[in-house]
Amino acid sequence: MKLSEIASIIGVDFQENDVDIIGLNTLKDAKANEISFVSNAKYVKEIKSTNAAAVIISQDVKDAVPQGCFALVVENPYWSMAILSKYFAPVIEDETLPLPKIGKDTKVSPKAEIANGAVIGDNCTILAHVYIGAEAVIGDNTIIYPSVTVYRDCKIGNDCIIHANSVIGSDGFGFATNKMGEHKKIYQNGNVVIEDDVEIGSNTSIDCAAFGTTLIKKGTRIDNLVQIGHNCEIGEYSVMVSQSGLAGSTKLGRNVVMGGQAAAAGHLEVAPFSTFAARSGITHSIKEPGKTYAGFPLMGHRQWLKLQAKLAKLIK
Amino acid sequence: MKLSEIASIIGVDFQENDVDIIGLNTLKDAKANEISFVSNAKYVKEIKSTNAAAVIISQDVKDAVPQGCFALVVENPYWSMAILSKYFAPVIEDETLPLPKIGKDTKVSPKAEIANGAVIGDNCTILAHVYIGAEAVIGDNTIIYPSVTVYRDCKIGNDCIIHANSVIGSDGFGFATNKMGEHKKIYQNGNVVIEDDVEIGSNTSIDCAAFGTTLIKKGTRIDNLVQIGHNCEIGEYSVMVSQSGLAGSTKLGRNVVMGGQAAAAGHLEVAPFSTFAARSGITHSIKEPGKTYAGFPLMGHRQWLKLQAKLAKLIK
Amino acid sequence: MKLSEIASIIGVDFQENDVDIIGLNTLKDAKANEISFVSNAKYVKEIKSTNAAAVIISQDVKDAVPQGCFALVVENPYWSMAILSKYFAPVIEDETLPLPKIGKDTKVSPKAEIANGAVIGDNCTILAHVYIGAEAVIGDNTIIYPSVTVYRDCKIGNDCIIHANSVIGSDGFGFATNKMGEHKKIYQNGNVVIEDDVEIGSNTSIDCAAFGTTLIKKGTRIDNLVQIGHNCEIGEYSVMVSQSGLAGSTKLGRNVVMGGQAAAAGHLEVAPFSTFAARSGITHSIKEPGKTYAGFPLMGHRQWLKLQAKLAKLIK
Repeated sequence: MKLSEIASIIGVDFQENDVDIIGLNTLKDAKANEISFVSNAKYVKEIKSTNAAAVIISQDVKDAVPQGCFALVVENPYWSMAILSKYFAPVIEDETLPLPKIGKDTKVSPKAEIANGAVIGDNCTILAHVYIGAEAVIGDNTIIYPSVTVYRDCKIGNDCIIHANSVIGSDGFGFATNKMGEHKKIYQNGNVVIEDDVEIGSNTSIDCAAFGTTLIKKGTRIDNLVQIGHNCEIGEYSVMVSQSGLAGSTKLGRNVVMGGQAAAAGHLEVAPFSTFAARSGITHSIKEPGKTYAGFPLMGHRQWLKLQAKLAKLIK
Repeated sequence: MKLSEIASIIGVDFQENDVDIIGLNTLKDAKANEISFVSNAKYVKEIKSTNAAAVIISQDVKDAVPQGCFALVVENPYWSMAILSKYFAPVIEDETLPLPKIGKDTKVSPKAEIANGAVIGDNCTILAHVYIGAEAVIGDNTIIYPSVTVYRDCKIGNDCIIHANSVIGSDGFGFATNKMGEHKKIYQNGNVVIEDDVEIGSNTSIDCAAFGTTLIKKGTRIDNLVQIGHNCEIGEYSVMVSQSGLAGSTKLGRNVVMGGQAAAAGHLEVAPFSTFAARSGITHSIKEPGKTYAGFPLMGHRQWLKLQAKLAKLIK
Repeated sequence: MKLSEIASIIGVDFQENDVDIIGLNTLKDAKANEISFVSNAKYVKEIKSTNAAAVIISQDVKDAVPQGCFALVVENPYWSMAILSKYFAPVIEDETLPLPKIGKDTKVSPKAEIANGAVIGDNCTILAHVYIGAEAVIGDNTIIYPSVTVYRDCKIGNDCIIHANSVIGSDGFGFATNKMGEHKKIYQNGNVVIEDDVEIGSNTSIDCAAFGTTLIKKGTRIDNLVQIGHNCEIGEYSVMVSQSGLAGSTKLGRNVVMGGQAAAAGHLEVAPFSTFAARSGITHSIKEPGKTYAGFPLMGHRQWLKLQAKLAKLIK
């Protein structure tokens, strides 16, 4: 797509030398043939080192754009980016991709659907009504139970088990909102990567990212009905008990345990070996490893017990 | 079905002129060839204006039934209605309905199932393992990801996206209970209507109604693992974050935001532009628009912060 | 499998007369051709009455093993048991089993998958994309909506309704953890039994047990997005509202009601006719029947209301 076309779609006057643009990406990851955007003041400092061909930006910070990078000045950069995201979204299925590759001794139910471009390793079991999307990759010895859906571009490692009706790679909950309160979808071009020896329960949802990857590291155990937002990262051997959830971009260290119905806000970092009691609400990052927490807002588990004792006294 | 048969099924003596009955409905909506019921004292005032041919009712309020309407007097009207609901339930699939109509440029996976009587618009994408029930209607440009189930009679608008493994129109959680503590299912004859430009995440459940419609208005965004009960109404451009839920018959105004794991009790009305923090528990209706709330029981967000500060002091 | 092979797999020296072992079971239920394990001091008292051929056990309690039963002494018996569980796990599908038996007047969608060894009763409706596993048994007059997955060996009674995309019998959340913090899956060999006249909503997960049965008794009503852990038992005519959950091995008496998002810890017993308000967190067993509770930690509903009144005063 020509940069001039992009400018026209978002209503920007463009008189420069035209270039071909092949993608939309973050300031940090954009290449010279991609465009990027600044939707939040905290990213302004990243503008000057971007390699993007052009940046969608608001009037007040446009001077931060480095030479050789074109400033596409709009009123609501996030909204304009959302409009463009549709043009750069990969197609859901692509019949021009090669037929799926199925490894040795792998059993695929005739009632499963493996999209073109997918690659499945050796000795896997893919049961009925499973869907493996375009260019998804499944390792060796992995079992995928019925009605699991794996969206395009997602990767699942070796020795994994995904229980029935879970969804890997549904779109992150991303949209721009204008002054009228209307929403515009941000198409999600990232993926989910699940490392080796991960087990995921039934009816669990793991969202993909608009840019980049949602990452579940080796040996993690995820129970039923768990929500994992876009761009989260879950450390090795972590445990997420049923009905727990992570909002977008939160990162758990290794061996973190989240009890049943516990949840974390977005954009947090949690130190390794942290344990959260059932229904904890993680409201801030955790720096010190190995402690136990409870409550919402979050507090140390002992403090929470003390608080409950005080409250019990209140009603005596 | 003859009214005399109906009377016989629920054990009522009937010696009047017989009539044909084609449905079971609420007092307000019942037509002259339908029957209705009074299971709750608060509906007694609606009896006198009903057009129903007959009303299932308890002895104590039977005198409110207007002339020309037959009173079917029983001990537990709700239980008797539940028994009858089975007789008036539509069949799940009906091979006598016309073959499904599929619009221009719409792709339907050969592994999807489209029931007879369904109508799908132009330029849609219906992926593998989707189920579209009898007489369901899908608009134009709508994408339905794998293993989504749309129950019969539901309607989905234009430009919608339904992510994998979500369910539109499963039965509302309705049953009558007798003195012995036994339950009797109330068959759900209503539907779900989703307007244009709505996106729904993965593993979300939206229930249909026993009578009438569960309505999701234009531009709303619903995340993963969300529960929406029967007869709810969600206003335009509302946002329901992951693992939030609405009990039956609650109505949200436009641009309401429910944070993660937030929930509302049933039969409430929430003013437009209300925002509920994560894990709010909405316990009463909200009349004033544009405010922010938190906590369970629900309070203003500032009050909640103040309460947390007081509690933090308690344990110091 | 020979006991000598088992010993070799878990690194135990074995010089005795060899025997054939056909299974792995609890101390209580193991037969003379099965082995068992002691992973928790509280089960030590059950050792002396076990019929198991051998017991995996730690050095400190090995003397409790009765004569005629071989002590397989290891450092981490639970970990060794997890390793062995894989060898005794039933295969997911078994083509040598007889073709499925389908009862009279039962309709099975050609897009459903019924595994060999399954038995479906009379007058059932099995919709598209349903999966019924090996040796699963479905009673008469039962309706299974699209994309429901029933794992192998599970049993569903007569007159049941299972709504779309629910999962019956996914693996319990069971694993052993070693000193390095690594996890090892415990293969689940038990099942789920659902008695007659049970209705289960959409996107609900009911886990099977490693040993024994998860049991849902007659007439129970389970809503959408509910989690039921392995080895739970739900009494007759109980009600679990949407997004509620039970951790493993908890037993509810008859006519227990759990409100929306309520949850119970594991290994509890709840007396009949107990009612739990929305979002209750059941933290201890309930012995007295017929009371109403709320809050987390759990308290009487009246106490909870009193507490909320006190807290409201705190911020005035």
